[in-house]
Amino acid sequence: MSRYTYRPPLDEMRFVIEQVLGAPARWAAMPAFAELDAETAAEVLAQAGRFTADVLQPLNAPGDRQGCRIEGGRVKTPDGFPAAWRAFVDGGWPALACDPAWGGQGLPQLLNTAVGEMINACNHAWNMYAGILHGAYATVKAHGSDELKARYLPRLASGEWLSAMALTEPQSGSDLGLVRTRAEPRPDGTLAVSGSKVFISGGDHDLTDNIVHLVLCRLQDPSNPAPPGTRGLSLVLVPAVLPDGTRNAMAADGLEHKMGIHGSATCAMRYEAATGWLVGEPHRGLPAMFVMMNAARVATAVQGLGHLEMAAQNAARYAAERVQFGGPIAARPAVRRTLDSLDAVAAGLRVVIYRAALRLDEADHHPYAGCRAAAAAEVSLLTPVLKAFATRQGFQGASDALQVWGGYGYMADYGIEQTLRDARIAMIYEGTNEIQAIDLVQRKLLGGAGPAFEALLDDLARDAGDSDAARALHEQLAQARGAVAALREAAAADPVAPLRAADDLLAGCGHLLLAWAWAAIERAAAPDDAARHALVAQGLRLVLPQAAVHWARARAALATA
Amino acid sequence: MSRYTYRPPLDEMRFVIEQVLGAPARWAAMPAFAELDAETAAEVLAQAGRFTADVLQPLNAPGDRQGCRIEGGRVKTPDGFPAAWRAFVDGGWPALACDPAWGGQGLPQLLNTAVGEMINACNHAWNMYAGILHGAYATVKAHGSDELKARYLPRLASGEWLSAMALTEPQSGSDLGLVRTRAEPRPDGTLAVSGSKVFISGGDHDLTDNIVHLVLCRLQDPSNPAPPGTRGLSLVLVPAVLPDGTRNAMAADGLEHKMGIHGSATCAMRYEAATGWLVGEPHRGLPAMFVMMNAARVATAVQGLGHLEMAAQNAARYAAERVQFGGPIAARPAVRRTLDSLDAVAAGLRVVIYRAALRLDEADHHPYAGCRAAAAAEVSLLTPVLKAFATRQGFQGASDALQVWGGYGYMADYGIEQTLRDARIAMIYEGTNEIQAIDLVQRKLLGGAGPAFEALLDDLARDAGDSDAARALHEQLAQARGAVAALREAAAADPVAPLRAADDLLAGCGHLLLAWAWAAIERAAAPDDAARHALVAQGLRLVLPQAAVHWARARAALATA
Repeated sequence: MSRYTYRPPLDEMRFVIEQVLGAPARWAAMPAFAELDAETAAEVLAQAGRFTADVLQPLNAPGDRQGCRIEGGRVKTPDGFPAAWRAFVDGGWPALACDPAWGGQGLPQLLNTAVGEMINACNHAWNMYAGILHGAYATVKAHGSDELKARYLPRLASGEWLSAMALTEPQSGSDLGLVRTRAEPRPDGTLAVSGSKVFISGGDHDLTDNIVHLVLCRLQDPSNPAPPGTRGLSLVLVPAVLPDGTRNAMAADGLEHKMGIHGSATCAMRYEAATGWLVGEPHRGLPAMFVMMNAARVATAVQGLGHLEMAAQNAARYAAERVQFGGPIAARPAVRRTLDSLDAVAAGLRVVIYRAALRLDEADHHPYAGCRAAAAAEVSLLTPVLKAFATRQGFQGASDALQVWGGYGYMADYGIEQTLRDARIAMIYEGTNEIQAIDLVQRKLLGGAGPAFEALLDDLARDAGDSDAARALHEQLAQARGAVAALREAAAADPVAPLRAADDLLAGCGHLLLAWAWAAIERAAAPDDAARHALVAQGLRLVLPQAAVHWARARAALATA
Repeated sequence: MSRYTYRPPLDEMRFVIEQVLGAPARWAAMPAFAELDAETAAEVLAQAGRFTADVLQPLNAPGDRQGCRIEGGRVKTPDGFPAAWRAFVDGGWPALACDPAWGGQGLPQLLNTAVGEMINACNHAWNMYAGILHGAYATVKAHGSDELKARYLPRLASGEWLSAMALTEPQSGSDLGLVRTRAEPRPDGTLAVSGSKVFISGGDHDLTDNIVHLVLCRLQDPSNPAPPGTRGLSLVLVPAVLPDGTRNAMAADGLEHKMGIHGSATCAMRYEAATGWLVGEPHRGLPAMFVMMNAARVATAVQGLGHLEMAAQNAARYAAERVQFGGPIAARPAVRRTLDSLDAVAAGLRVVIYRAALRLDEADHHPYAGCRAAAAAEVSLLTPVLKAFATRQGFQGASDALQVWGGYGYMADYGIEQTLRDARIAMIYEGTNEIQAIDLVQRKLLGGAGPAFEALLDDLARDAGDSDAARALHEQLAQARGAVAALREAAAADPVAPLRAADDLLAGCGHLLLAWAWAAIERAAAPDDAARHALVAQGLRLVLPQAAVHWARARAALATA
């Protein structure tokens, strides 16, 4: 019986990028990507597919078994992880979407997202090292001084150095206002950073010579005292190796023993007057950090998609090979139903997430400022929905898929139980899914994103066409409009009411996006493309009914305000 | 911050047993339990609660970390497991519900079920050894020869010896017709059993001197050849130690590396002309085995309840202690909603499962044959619903609860991630949840259990009273009647249609049972019992809306036949 393996879904990716989203024509409208064509993009993805399937996937199960350890005060990653990173750097992959001015290849985030899907499908733990890089790169690029940019951006873009985000402390999880780590100014203009951080992914490892930490802390400047809470936090760049080549006063005190992603070094970090440099303005660390959080949240949604795709394709292979009751179990209605649901959700999520990535590219590179602003507003609105909805689907899909293997699914040898364990963290980190729902409702729908929400819904409606999927989409759009109107009304009467409805509103929006994706697939698929038309029908029949529960429960929560 | 711990829910158990189910009056109607009163029963549960919380729970996390290993060809369980078993035997716990004629204490299955809930909540892996015992006891008692009964029943009842169910083979999971293990008659009347079995829980261990295997195999008797498929299977008792004190020709070849229940030895077993004795008639092994499967399936539902209770009470404790945003996180609406859902489902499932246990006692001990038959028919009908629905709720509830801990939930030190990993197996073993759904639909609803279904629904309706919960129950009853009528109609036109609707029909029935349980709690709770009335309202508001999806999807699947 075949073990876990990975077939890069290149045809599906091309279909979404070219047929559903029409990305090549939209690249042509952006000077930064004007020279990129569909064939070049497809070749990039094919190469990435080979690397992920041939290099990263074979390291996944061994990395889970071996995990990380501390030797001589330094963290060692599983066998093969450092070599795979060097191969990744040599291939130019870290720089894929980075600015050519800093040594990047300047390709769209859309391609980077598709590559990220494949990396995550094959080796989530390994990707923990790679994934943080983009957030640090974006943060230093947006908020770093020219000196910091010159010193760190080229080596972050190339992947010569990696990075870590040091936010969480034992008493300070979702509530960052409780951060206690201190940064004291020194006469030479540097900062002395002291404190303890926990759950720091890639805080120490043996993939690169240097690790650039971005540490959230309180600046202790008597001439400019820090306000209490989150308005008094600053972001400080603290490298493991200082510019003079000496090691900074920081160390990994221990490694967490986790449910999954064992190959990812989750460090408890200690900073003992470590030398650092301020990134951005004093006490403006949180806004600076949100540059990296938003990038990280979209990347986390991609993790959910990767896990779902991996679970779906391996379950389908297993079900085609495993014979019980005189035939392959794929023919059993219960198994068929699970496989069909997984396929429909994976295909739908891919469209939704890739759309967001394309809009991210337009937010950065569209020639018209109005288009950039509209795209940025859409991405900001969608980010919490994508993060929470896709990671939940990734975990739930992995669990549904595991059931296809029966008893074998519970055994470590078959791979799917690792997918389930690895997938679970994505619902928690980068802001728990419940924090995402609060962000969607409080900061976005009830904040400044009302017009962006209207614009998004109008835009989704325009894409509908005329089909069962289009009718389902219009029904979801009506539900969403009604629920958000009820939300505004309830919020005016009782400020806590939105929080009671937040999770269901987010899940409802997630299903709305799936309905749009299926309508878009229906419209883009050739008339004789029976597989894709069937997939859309499966989504409408097996998955979309769940939306009604979320809308109804959200409305009820708002009505009891 | 407090670590994982267990508070036996004795008040809840008494409320269900005494107030909701009125069990003491029903015991009084059965001669076997006529001398049992509520106080005695409560004292048994209090003692069991102390044993599970003080002895078993502290072994749970260490047992997960250490796991089992093979030393010198024999399986060793985690430190403390054998001593806990001896203490359990010394306390008389294995014999709780066994027949006094065989050394048992003759107490009701209802009490045994409540004890089982506590054992499972505290240490699922350890309970894997204890849990199999009752199935083997019941099977030998129902089908064994007088000689086998005399030799094995007293020592199984006392727990001096343990047992294993050896059914699965690599090619034969859900489809037992593919079993290849052979049993060849010998001149002395014994059988020589040869073959390989996988996934054998407790196939070897160091808890007891002897382990009594019940092995499903094909009898090779030329004078009475075995029909092909499941009609040619026989059940053979194969003890690890033979009556003359020598070891039988059987061994654990290896231990599976599993996602969870690491303290449970999941063995690959090899039988090399091992000596055994037929249990029941030749080629009638499957019906004999179903005695043990049904007992095991109800016990598996109890595992789901135990996991859910453990997750719910620890999440509530953590949420009361963990401070973020200026207050305990229990006050945050998203956390509150999760805790409320967990409480409502745990309380409802307890009523539903305890009711089934009470009916099991009536099936065995009611003085009127008609009442025994009706109770047995109800238990048979409910068994697949309880097994699949409760185990899914146990796993899903553990995952929902884990979210309350945020990042700490993903760390091994906090206990909840073990609950999630342990809980996952219960959806698979003792017949996957999908097999349960097929059993419910094909063998029960479309088989001979139509009258039992009508009787159950009438009975549930009688309990309703007049409340929001009662109205919700009547709505669920109407949905169930309509869906089953549609099922019968569709089955007549297309024999595959029921299989497409099976999982949703089962989930719908599970929600119907929860609605009944909440109505029964509402009716039994004192008027000033605000906590219980609130719990019922939470169940109706947060959990029951999900039922609509299952009924709608089931109806749609039947309509597309």
